Amino acid sequence: MACPLGIMIANKPDTSFNDCSKKLDIARDIMDVLNGKWKMEIILALLQFEKRRFKELQKDIPGISSKILSAVLKDLEANHIVKREVIDTFPIAVEYELTDYGKSLKQVLVDFVKLGINHRKEVMGGS
Amino acid sequence: MACPLGIMIANKPDTSFNDCSKKLDIARDIMDVLNGKWKMEIILALLQFEKRRFKELQKDIPGISSKILSAVLKDLEANHIVKREVIDTFPIAVEYELTDYGKSLKQVLVDFVKLGINHRKEVMGGS
Repeated sequence: MACPLGIMIANKPDTSFNDCSKKLDIARDIMDVLNGKWKMEIILALLQFEKRRFKELQKDIPGISSKILSAVLKDLEANHIVKREVIDTFPIAVEYELTDYGKSLKQVLVDFVKLGINHRKEVMGGS
Repeated sequence: MACPLGIMIANKPDTSFNDCSKKLDIARDIMDVLNGKWKMEIILALLQFEKRRFKELQKDIPGISSKILSAVLKDLEANHIVKREVIDTFPIAVEYELTDYGKSLKQVLVDFVKLGINHRKEVMGGS
């Protein structure tokens, strides 16, 4: 049975619909990485401003609490999207920036916005 | 201020980071349409089998309850992804298939799986 997604993983052909649908778990991985209220906002702020301190990010993104900002930055760090650098000043400062992988997600955000615009057209007959 | 996403909506340029980040709400629309435990599975089954009756879909997708399948199909119908046709047999049968817009989401699923594979490589250093 050919999977309509036409993607082979580790050269293993799909033998059932179930094999094929397992690939969707991989798709969900990237959705989970970007979904949630603030992840895309933080990536966007770091695309815009490049290097940013914690307090600056909090100003960039209205409504985010420092607790949530800290948790989401840790999540993005664990996913190799953001890197954190301690600057040796007094008092110590911490700067955040995107990794190369994080920067590559710009195109993904652009694609998502385009898909969303198209979706609104399809469903509402207008943007 | 140029938005790093570089997408203008209704020819309005962004004047602040806040204008730019509002576009992410549009991106979230399409993520919400596809996210959740079963939506992508149902789209995949209809890509695979084209027309499918309710009972068939339930067999295609192990673990889905009829209550959930019915709710997710209604959601996909409301989003113009699935269409429902009543077949005039006795007893009446109901068939589901993708709309043209629904079929166009195949490429989106393929792209998501590719992004997911890439994400796993980035984070775990292997697929």
